[in-house]
Amino acid sequence: MQGPRGTRDLYPVEAARRRWITERWREVAVRHGFEEVDGPTFEESDLYAVKSGEGILGELFQAYSGKSPDEVERVRATGRAPYAMRPEFTPTLARMYAARAAGLPKPCKWFQIGPFFRAERPQRGRLREFLQWNCDVLGLDVAPEKWNAEDAESRAEVAEAKARMDAECIACCVDFLSSVGLTPGDVRIRISDRKVVSDLLLKEGVSSAALSAAFAVIDRIDKQPPDKSFDELRALGASKACILSLVPGATISGTASSLTEVFQTAHAQLGPLDAVHEASARAFSKTMPVNLALLQLGYSTDWFTADMRVVRGLAYYTGTVFEVIAEGERAVAGGGRYDNLVELFGGPPTPAVGFAMGDVVLANLLQDKGLMPSDAELMGLVGQSPDVFVLSNGTEEAERQVRPLVASLRRGSRAPQDSGLKTQAPGPKPQAPLHVRHSYKATKNVGKLLKEAAQVGARFAVIVESASEATVKDLRTGEQWPDRVPIDEIGRKIAERAWNSR
Amino acid sequence: MQGPRGTRDLYPVEAARRRWITERWREVAVRHGFEEVDGPTFEESDLYAVKSGEGILGELFQAYSGKSPDEVERVRATGRAPYAMRPEFTPTLARMYAARAAGLPKPCKWFQIGPFFRAERPQRGRLREFLQWNCDVLGLDVAPEKWNAEDAESRAEVAEAKARMDAECIACCVDFLSSVGLTPGDVRIRISDRKVVSDLLLKEGVSSAALSAAFAVIDRIDKQPPDKSFDELRALGASKACILSLVPGATISGTASSLTEVFQTAHAQLGPLDAVHEASARAFSKTMPVNLALLQLGYSTDWFTADMRVVRGLAYYTGTVFEVIAEGERAVAGGGRYDNLVELFGGPPTPAVGFAMGDVVLANLLQDKGLMPSDAELMGLVGQSPDVFVLSNGTEEAERQVRPLVASLRRGSRAPQDSGLKTQAPGPKPQAPLHVRHSYKATKNVGKLLKEAAQVGARFAVIVESASEATVKDLRTGEQWPDRVPIDEIGRKIAERAWNSR
Repeated sequence: MQGPRGTRDLYPVEAARRRWITERWREVAVRHGFEEVDGPTFEESDLYAVKSGEGILGELFQAYSGKSPDEVERVRATGRAPYAMRPEFTPTLARMYAARAAGLPKPCKWFQIGPFFRAERPQRGRLREFLQWNCDVLGLDVAPEKWNAEDAESRAEVAEAKARMDAECIACCVDFLSSVGLTPGDVRIRISDRKVVSDLLLKEGVSSAALSAAFAVIDRIDKQPPDKSFDELRALGASKACILSLVPGATISGTASSLTEVFQTAHAQLGPLDAVHEASARAFSKTMPVNLALLQLGYSTDWFTADMRVVRGLAYYTGTVFEVIAEGERAVAGGGRYDNLVELFGGPPTPAVGFAMGDVVLANLLQDKGLMPSDAELMGLVGQSPDVFVLSNGTEEAERQVRPLVASLRRGSRAPQDSGLKTQAPGPKPQAPLHVRHSYKATKNVGKLLKEAAQVGARFAVIVESASEATVKDLRTGEQWPDRVPIDEIGRKIAERAWNSR
Repeated sequence: MQGPRGTRDLYPVEAARRRWITERWREVAVRHGFEEVDGPTFEESDLYAVKSGEGILGELFQAYSGKSPDEVERVRATGRAPYAMRPEFTPTLARMYAARAAGLPKPCKWFQIGPFFRAERPQRGRLREFLQWNCDVLGLDVAPEKWNAEDAESRAEVAEAKARMDAECIACCVDFLSSVGLTPGDVRIRISDRKVVSDLLLKEGVSSAALSAAFAVIDRIDKQPPDKSFDELRALGASKACILSLVPGATISGTASSLTEVFQTAHAQLGPLDAVHEASARAFSKTMPVNLALLQLGYSTDWFTADMRVVRGLAYYTGTVFEVIAEGERAVAGGGRYDNLVELFGGPPTPAVGFAMGDVVLANLLQDKGLMPSDAELMGLVGQSPDVFVLSNGTEEAERQVRPLVASLRRGSRAPQDSGLKTQAPGPKPQAPLHVRHSYKATKNVGKLLKEAAQVGARFAVIVESASEATVKDLRTGEQWPDRVPIDEIGRKIAERAWNSR
């Protein structure tokens, strides 16, 4: 028997890899001031249908209670179930924010880590169950009455605040990439702005009815020959100049000075822009605030590429969109600004921005770049290396002490009133509980047992020598403590050493 | 819009409570030498049907791919879906162990923490989505060829090893209870043995065909009047003596010396047993090994009550069964020995024992006993209190430094070749990244900002005084550092202090 196709069984090494990734995600989110939230693993199907239409349910795992005759009947009649296993976090987040908007801080910075599900065909970088890290900033650090004000001053203030919040999200994402050892040589953050691109398309001949079709073409520019994209955009009404700025390498013209190049050049110069044509200039200056905000926070421009071909698949983005790209992989992360979504879920109008990073592409990338810790390092990195490995010198009297000592060190000791345990280490000083192992093998050979202690990465080996004493060996330095230690003092002595050396 | 009935939205405080519980679970499992594993959140329905029959699917959330016309068609035709959201971990565990049995250590100690789902009516202590902690010991520290050997010596050796493994599981469970402050005054571990009870029933008049019906009655002894249980067991053929030993308080006889009392008395005396009647004596001596093993590990008998009425609902238990009971609550945890399950999933015959603890009853209990950390303590306990809160003295030149300083402290600094960042703190010593916050409020009032710093639990406040200098205040001691610190040295100085004081 196997697990469902596209899912994973995590044995200890794989589970440690997951833990290593999720703890790095968590650490970075926390130090950037995001607070953890979560919602249910499954939601009502309507939550997704409201946002994306009924069609979305065809991409999801749908679910129903086998106990409810009513639900079973409805599924049989319609093929549509009342619940869906969550494919992304944003609808849940918007629902949760909408439900308590008035009482939440502004801005509200939330992160989430958990499993998500998509009914897609499994392939490299894409599974049916995967982990995702979500970071979102909802609201602005500007008085809410200004968020949708029409006067020029408020609009400028709000635009700047949005750029700051966009930059906070992107900064958090970059710090994660950097914290696991990735560099701009490995990954790049491509940034665009949906509003800018749609303004450009509208100005350059695309009708508003054809906008989403044009976005779909832009989304696949990298996946098909340039001339095919050119023809498709032409058919949707776009001007040649506009297309050339979007489709680098289209062979229709020799000039090839794409908007992407304009962005990159101007970005590198960081001086006033030598405008190429009006649309490019407008696009550039409008995309600029988030870039400026990132520069002000001290981020190197090496990480960023302004690129109008970044559209992101999801329909709800309204402004800045970005994705983390590595050569030969699907996007490592993606996100953007979604200023209308909270309102759609019954909350007040709330500008919001966020991104999600999945574990599958990330893990592939880290493996390829040699940045995934080795199996030997992993257990230590996730805090699962033993503090102590207990063995005996092989005499019967010493051997009898091994398991009780292991149990006692694991329990630690507290003030007696705190616990119902008969602790073996009386006295005023409590002993912190320790991670302790012993061998389950039949051997009594001290050399073999010390080898096992080293293999599992234990910090100290305790060799019980008699009914009352033991010797202690520091496996990091190889040094043996000069004096034997009474068995009922071992816990405290080891705990002192282990904490001091951390 | 709300989440599905019986599920939870976790806002920051609730998410921190979850984190606090799951990290305590993890800590205790790890220090007892269990290694983390996990499987998919959903499994093929057959995985559950194989073990418990098709009927179990009526208790589960069933799922199917909305993308697969074949699956949708099958659901419409039959009302049965190809997948189910996992209601428990044991089938996944058995499947995973069976798939790699030959290469896994013996014993193999695994723990798992994650979401589980049941299509039950939500009520106190019971939700449709909940978290569960699973700890299991698969196999024994005895040569596998002996596990099912028939000679008396092997059988005794195996029985003792099983008791040791049972005790390892129960010890881990007790250490968790103790580590969150629970005492034997709050919770008790009731232990029984399915084999013993079924032997007793068979001997005392119940036919093997009626065994599972008798177990069902025993399972509800505490939930119905004693005389009703008496009558039901009588109807199944059980002798009066047998019933009296199982149903304390049944009014049929005045003797009322229940087996439970026998267990408790004998347990307290820890001397040779003054047998009451033969069945009790047999039951006692057979249940004894796990109790003895626990005593040998130094556990107080206060935690344990031998109680033959403990049956546990699941069909697969074959020996020791136990549950953690608190007055007025559903079971906090439950588990037992399941020696046949791995084989059922295609693995080699493998004695195994484990337990599961859910978060819902546990959290209710901790709240009731006043043991759940307060909201104010929680963020610190889950490592989410800021290291630093940055503010300015209100001058424009100082204020401009706040956000770049925040970003720089969050990034930390490394050797330049490790990163694409332009770090602001050059020099040889890297600075560990810090958890840093600042105010999003409009106020520039230093007093108010320091108050906000204290409210979020920050360790240090950094007050930027100019473009190049800041003062630092230790919010734990209230003490201000005597000298101003150059802005680009703050990270290293704070990191030194913060680490040293941990």
